[in-house]
This record gives sequence, C-alpha cells and structure tokens, in this order.
Amino acid sequence: LLGVWPSPYVYRIIWALGLKGVKYEYIQGEFHKSDFTDLLLKYNPVYKKVPVLVLDGKPIAESMVILEYIEEIWPQPPLLPKDPYKRAMARFWVSFAEEKKATKEVREVLKVLEETIGDKKYFGGEEIGLLDINLGWIALSFGVIEDIVGVKVLVVDDFPCLFTWIQNFREHQAIKTNLPNHQDLFVYYKQKRETIIPSS
Amino acid sequence: LLGVWPSPYVYRIIWALGLKGVKYEYIQGEFHKSDFTDLLLKYNPVYKKVPVLVLDGKPIAESMVILEYIEEIWPQPPLLPKDPYKRAMARFWVSFAEEKKATKEVREVLKVLEETIGDKKYFGGEEIGLLDINLGWIALSFGVIEDIVGVKVLVVDDFPCLFTWIQNFREHQAIKTNLPNHQDLFVYYKQKRETIIPSS
Repeated sequence: LLGVWPSPYVYRIIWALGLKGVKYEYIQGEFHKSDFTDLLLKYNPVYKKVPVLVLDGKPIAESMVILEYIEEIWPQPPLLPKDPYKRAMARFWVSFAEEKKATKEVREVLKVLEETIGDKKYFGGEEIGLLDINLGWIALSFGVIEDIVGVKVLVVDDFPCLFTWIQNFREHQAIKTNLPNHQDLFVYYKQKRETIIPSS
Repeated sequence: LLGVWPSPYVYRIIWALGLKGVKYEYIQGEFHKSDFTDLLLKYNPVYKKVPVLVLDGKPIAESMVILEYIEEIWPQPPLLPKDPYKRAMARFWVSFAEEKKATKEVREVLKVLEETIGDKKYFGGEEIGLLDINLGWIALSFGVIEDIVGVKVLVVDDFPCLFTWIQNFREHQAIKTNLPNHQDLFVYYKQKRETIIPSS
C-alpha cells in the first residue's frame, strides 16, 4: 500500500485491510521526494495519486475501487450487505457523500447522514461497513479542523446520532489502532491552512 | 424506470436492461410537469434526479449504482469481467471518466481512452460491458454536439480506435434499437444551447 500521511483516502484502505485482517506492507511517502514520485508514476501513471494498492506487482488506484476489490478478494468480514438492494443503498450513500464532499456542502451531507443513521450503531446496522469507511474522514478529522477554523460545524445537539456514530467508529477494534494522533493532525492542518491563509 | 429524454444517464440504464433482456416499464417525464416532479420526490427525495429504477416499489437512484445492482440481479450476460483485478480496472476507468467528465477535460479523457481501447472491439475485450455503457454518452452525442458547436473535438486521425469503438457500440444489437434519432438530438441540443447563448 502506497500512501501519504494523513490522507483520509489512504485511511479508508488502512481501515478496510485492518478489518479484514490482511497483512500488508505500507510505504509512506512524501510527494516532493523523487523516489516516491517515481513509485507513483510507475504504479498510478494516470492520476499520480495515493492510495495505490499493489498486489503481485499489479496496481489498483482510487480508494472506492480499491475497497470494492478488497471486498471481492477478502469477503470476510463483509463490508457490504448480502442483499442486493441494501448493497445498492450503501453504494448510493457513498456516491452521495463523494459528490457532496466535492461541492463542500458539508452541513447538507451531515443533515442527511444524521437521518440515515438514526439509532443504528453503524450505517449498515450492527456491523461496520463500506459506508462507515467511506465516511471515516468525518470521524478522522472531527474536532481537529473545527479547532483550527474556530467554527463548530458539527454541533452535538443538531447531530446526536452522528456523534454517537463517531464514537462507535473510533472505538472499533480495527479502527482505533489505526487512527492518527489528534495533536499531530492539528499541527498538520494548521500548517496546511497557513500556507493558504498566511497568519498575520 | 423513470427517465427524461435524452439524458445520457438514463440511456445507461436503458442499454443495460436491453443487454440483459429485462422487460420493464419506461415512464418518460418532463421535469416541469408536476405529476413527474411528484414521482421524483417520492422515489428520489435526496437528489430528485433521473434515472430512478423502481423494483417492487423500492427505488434505486444514481446511474452507476443502478448498473451495479442490475449486474448483481441479472448476471447474464455479464457487464463486468469475472477476474477481480479486471473488474477493478473497469471500475477504475469508470471513476476516471466520471471525474474528468465533471471537469470537462474532454480531450484528455479521449486521449487516455484511445490508448486504453487500442484495437479491442469493446473496452472489456470481445464483449460489451460496464465501461462501454458508462462511456456510451460519447457515442450517443458524437457528431451532434460538434455539428452545433462547429468544432471537431473527435478527429478521426487523432482517435482512430475510438471511432471504431463508436461504430461497434452503435451497431450492437441491444444498443442500436435504443439510440435516439440524430436529428431529434440535434434539435434538442440546439434549443438547449440557444437558451444559454441566444442566437443573434
């Protein structure tokens, strides 16, 4: 697995492999280092982006494509329901979240997700699944970005079910051993923000 | 199947159902008609967009989600290869085309697709598949938009393999019976363009 820290897309794959109990080698690179750029050019010439999963020398790129592949190759424990209609619903919400994330209508996404999860433990029910992993970036960066920007997007009173889900997600055995440190993330996002908006 | 004419996203589903030999009822609506808006509100409250496929009263939205569902419910003839790596590659190109279409880097997409298809009959090889259906909008609107805009994006000398593919695609038994009329499309796109750029 080729990744950079702390890409939420790379974490999707880390979490999925963790859930499936798959052993793998993790090559964590830095984009400006030429040896890592060479690896990316070799394995993902179309996008030159991470994550890339390489199996027997054959590379796969794009986090959601990798997740579907992982689900097919290592079916246990399943990330998608067996019932085709429920599978379609999981994929529908993934596509919804991906599209909305791109347009940054974060509050709208959160509102719909709050209704979707209700009092379920995970988005799929009792077991963690594809949609939880897809939305893991919310749990990953929750609190950190808000601490930096100084605006609370996710207010506990408005999104009680999502708050419970964030806790359930973070406490899952396969996730909690693969979460970046809050303080490290804080420093990372703060630096990133300062390269865009220089602090005065 | 709920659709509007001539949405390329709706055609994806029409083509897939045609390939699978599935019989269905097609409800073709117009967005400004209130009874169709009511149907959309009922079956796709999140997006209010077509296509929507309703099975036993249960709706599925988003064309690529519907295609994966169709593939699971009616596996024959297959739209995705059996080999998981080849399946991942098909999904990778779908995700590439979807992303690039959004950013309108059409020529860049065409260039990569030209290399990808090479001298294969379809993107997956000898049989038509998910990626062909996903890219069907190229074959659908090819020639029409160019006639209107007056610019040739797809030059046969630059994209010989794609030209051959467009012909193969259009001539496939399940596709050719489900292609909109060139003249109708021309009128449709011309009107659409004139509502944006009034002709003087």
